[in-house]
Parts: sequence; C-alpha cells; structure tokens
Amino acid sequence: MRQAGRSLPEYFPVRGDGSILDAIKEPERAAEITLQPTRRYDLDAAILFSDIVTPLWATGIGIDIKPGVGPVTENPIRDESDLDRFRPVDPESDLDFQTEAIKLITKELDIPLIGFCGAPFTLATYLIEGKPSKNHTNTKRLMFSNPELWHTLCEKISDVVIASLKAQIDAGVEAVQLFDSWAGILHPVHYQEFVFPHSKRILETVQTTGIPLFHFGTGTSMLLDQFAAAGADVVGVDWKTSLRHARTILGNDYTLQGNLDPSICTAPWPVVEKEVRRILDENAGNPRFIFNLGHGVLPETNPDILARVADFVHEYGQTLLDNS
Amino acid sequence: MRQAGRSLPEYFPVRGDGSILDAIKEPERAAEITLQPTRRYDLDAAILFSDIVTPLWATGIGIDIKPGVGPVTENPIRDESDLDRFRPVDPESDLDFQTEAIKLITKELDIPLIGFCGAPFTLATYLIEGKPSKNHTNTKRLMFSNPELWHTLCEKISDVVIASLKAQIDAGVEAVQLFDSWAGILHPVHYQEFVFPHSKRILETVQTTGIPLFHFGTGTSMLLDQFAAAGADVVGVDWKTSLRHARTILGNDYTLQGNLDPSICTAPWPVVEKEVRRILDENAGNPRFIFNLGHGVLPETNPDILARVADFVHEYGQTLLDNS
Repeated sequence: MRQAGRSLPEYFPVRGDGSILDAIKEPERAAEITLQPTRRYDLDAAILFSDIVTPLWATGIGIDIKPGVGPVTENPIRDESDLDRFRPVDPESDLDFQTEAIKLITKELDIPLIGFCGAPFTLATYLIEGKPSKNHTNTKRLMFSNPELWHTLCEKISDVVIASLKAQIDAGVEAVQLFDSWAGILHPVHYQEFVFPHSKRILETVQTTGIPLFHFGTGTSMLLDQFAAAGADVVGVDWKTSLRHARTILGNDYTLQGNLDPSICTAPWPVVEKEVRRILDENAGNPRFIFNLGHGVLPETNPDILARVADFVHEYGQTLLDNS
Repeated sequence: MRQAGRSLPEYFPVRGDGSILDAIKEPERAAEITLQPTRRYDLDAAILFSDIVTPLWATGIGIDIKPGVGPVTENPIRDESDLDRFRPVDPESDLDFQTEAIKLITKELDIPLIGFCGAPFTLATYLIEGKPSKNHTNTKRLMFSNPELWHTLCEKISDVVIASLKAQIDAGVEAVQLFDSWAGILHPVHYQEFVFPHSKRILETVQTTGIPLFHFGTGTSMLLDQFAAAGADVVGVDWKTSLRHARTILGNDYTLQGNLDPSICTAPWPVVEKEVRRILDENAGNPRFIFNLGHGVLPETNPDILARVADFVHEYGQTLLDNS
C-alpha cells in the first residue's frame, strides 16, 4: 500500500536520487511528496510519505535503505549482545522531522492524513537478515531457537513503534496503519506465539488515543482473524484474498480495506475497470469497505489510470484512500 | 519441495558447476543425484532429479536456468508472433535423457519414484517475464489484456507438460507432481478463469494412466479447493497453511502432503522435533496425510536433521516422501 508517489513524474524532482530517508527527513520534501497524489486523485484520505523503518533508523540502530535494494542492516542482530545497541526513540529529538512534516501537511490538506509504521515482526526480519531475504531463514532460526531473545527484541522494537505512532498522532494524523509486510510467511500457530502478542500490545496501547487503527500485510489470508483480534479497527485484504473469504472470517460489520491487484493497474483502462467493478460488486455495497489497492502502487503505473480508478469508485459510491 | 540434494556434501561433485540442466540431461548424473537422498534417509518414495522447466527447455523455446539466478528466457513472449517459436515436444528425441534416467533409477530403487513437471501458469511466467520476477506484472498484463493469447500460450505449454508427464510414466515413475509454484500470486477468481482450465486438462489427461497425481504451489491456501477440483489426488499444503484449514476445505478423506517449514529444519533438533510433532499431532493420525516439507529443502540444511525428521515421522507412524 501507499507508494503512490513513485509512479508520478512530479515525484522524482522532489524525491532526489539518494536514500529515500534523505527525502523523508526533510519536512518540506516529505510534505510535498505526501500532497502530490492528493492533487491528482479524488481521494478520501492521504498517507504520510515515510517508510516502515523510519523510527528504527532514527534511533541509530544501523538500519538504512539502500537505493535499488531495500532495508539493510550493517551489523545484523544475532545474539543477546546486539540488544545493547538498542536505545529508546526520543520523539522530540529523533522524530522532529516527522512531526514537522505532519504539521506542514495537515495545514494544507482538507482530507484526513494517515500515519504508519512497520510492525515488530517485519522490522525484526530486516534487523536480523541484514538485507531483503527470500526465506527469512535467519529470522526463523533465531525466533524458534532463542524465543527469549526474540521476544526481548520484539519488545524493544515495539517500544520504538509505539513512540513513533503516538508522536504521529500528537502531530495530527487522524488514523494509523501498522504494516506487517512479512507476517504472511508464518504458519498461523507461529504467528500466534511469536508475533501476535507484540502487535497486540502496540495496537492496544495506541487504541487509547481513540483514532482508527489499520493493520495490513500481504499473504495474510490465514492471519486475518488474528490481525483483527490484535486490536485493529480495519484489516487490509491483499489482492490474493477474496473479500468473501475475509467476510467469512471477520463478518459483515468489520471494516476491510483492499483489494485491487496493483499489477492490474498497469493494464489498459477497460481491464482495470472490469476488475474494479468486480471487487465493488463482490463487496455488494457493504459500507464497511474502503476501496484501495491490495499492496503498493507499482512504479510503472500510469497515473491517469489511478485517477480513473478513484473517480470510478466514487461514482459507484465507495470510499477510497490515497494508498491507491 | 524436492531439492534434497543441494544440502548434501556428496551432491556437489556429481552436480558440477554449470547449469543444473547440464546435470539433468546426463542420465547417469541425474540418476545418481536422485538416489543420493534415498541412501541417507528412510523415505517412502524418491523424486526425480530434474527441473520444472526441463521439457520446455528441451523444445528449444529459449528457456534456460542461469546459475544463481533461476529460469531465464532470452526473448520473452510478448505477442502472437512469439507463439511461432513453439514446437511440440518429441519425447523420443527431446526427452530421451529423462527416460534413460528414470530407467536407471527404477532399476536400483526399492521405493516408488515420483516424476514431475511445472504447471502452465508458472512456466508461462518464466516465458513472459524472461527472468525471476517479484510482481509478475508482465504476465498479469498479458493475461488480462490479451486473454486469447494467454490461453493459446497455456495450451501450447500444456501439450508439452502432458507429453513430458506421459513419457515419465511410460518410463516407470509411479506418481507425478504438477508444480504451480507461482499460482498463489493470483486472486481465486483469476486463477479460476486463467489457470484452472489448463491445469485441469493436464490432470484429466494424465489421470487415464491411473497413477496418483500430486498438485502443489506455495501461498495457495485460497486455491486448495481448485487444486483438488482440477483433478489432483493429493494436494500439497505449504508451511503457511494450517492442516486444519486444508481439512476444512478438502475434508478428512482427501490426501494432503506437507507441511513443515523448510526454514525450521535449519534450527537445532529439539526445535525441529517440536514442530514435526506439532504437525503430526494436528494431523491426529489421519492416514490420508503424507508428511513432507512445505517447500524445497534449503541448501543450508544439515542432512542429519533431515535423517532424524524421517526417523521421527516413521516412529510416529506416518508416511513420508523423499521431498523432505
């Protein structure tokens, strides 16, 4: 989800060539990039330009985003001694750029702004693997072989996530999303044991602010019940999961978000229209559905197609978010 | 699944440094590699050393396997004119090495040998993308934008798959697996429209031979019903799907295969034992379950761990295949 910017021609001059974190840490650039899609598309909310690793990076743990690669950690976490490198995040000094960006954005925006952060499992995979991984073998080996270290690590990450989300809310976002991009690589019983308690603590802690909490990951068709049970008000449904399945698991009164395949948005409009209509027809007018892509916008997407998606969904009478 | 070889020290001297297809096309080497895991592990069946792209490669369509990369196609399929490059596979001249290997293996083997091939969707992704892809955007764009070309392409691939499976059965394999490794990236309704008819035609055609048909892909928790409906006697359950879910969809009388996470096999034995026991306990003694890994063996796996897995499963009283 999110990442609408990278398919817009006006994005690149603002974004620049360096690490995405260079753009994120400059409030004016981050604000401008956040606003760009809202000028093109008729959206019901915008999402902050940031990254799931931003608060961890801000603590100086050594995570970075390498252009063309993704999140990398120079000295991956392997044993207890690596935990000494953790320090709590201080929102005032570490995340001031984020607070500033949110204030700049909300001043201009006439739709709600959504904040977000990565969830502990996904962030832990980047800290443990050191680089994007296919099988996440190091993560799983550590998790299963040393559950105590695993849980301590996730608690430390969770503290950073909670601080970041609270700071975003204090600065003015009106909803937050917790992204557990990689949770879908786990069997449901392992998710329950190793991940659920941490995501639950985060969502329950942030719940006290009273703003809507979204929770999303891809490949999570077997985890939707636990995503909701962890305390999410809205669960994202990726493009591989039917709305019917999600409704069977979560019922008609639960709010779902999704579930257009981003790849389809690279096809000609008649193809896209057919699929958007199919999803809306499957939803059958349930107001507890926020139309969105089932994952991030692909860089090769034609912005005109996304504009037509937004208009079509509104003409059909459904809500949709900037994440398209 | 399969790929037990690549974690064995005795594999590399036989396998050599070149393309895996160099080893596959030499019957003596392919036979030796097929037999190696059966000497180490107490298995109930062996699986042919080959690759899902082997028969396509043998037709000269231009698909190859690049060491360290995976399947590549020099001139990817993009429009109707590319279909001219297809020619039917002639088992006698194109797949003689496969027939020869199977004959060498079955002469020595006192357990059944399983043959296999890739399914049309997964093979089409390699022909269309040209290289391993994360989002398979070209494949989906072609599929949705030009359904006629898509279906013609899949029919041509299916003819090659059928010929290969029949040749393997004629040569002496006692079961075959159809691997649709990438099918899980599709929404169930798109799978139904674009993939199901082709996999069904293959399975129904091969069904006439009377041998058991296995069907497997990863991330297919939402597709298990269609995998079975296509005509499979056994459906593989990856490590992300609970057996309980699979039983809810397919019932207690259907044969399932799976579902140990290959990453867990890189952990110390007590961790592996606990997980193997958990899966067997979840199966609760249902004889319609073949214990196996939920995907291929990872290269960093300790063979001694796999030997203990095999012994443990037998002591517990369950069947298992060489794919572990």
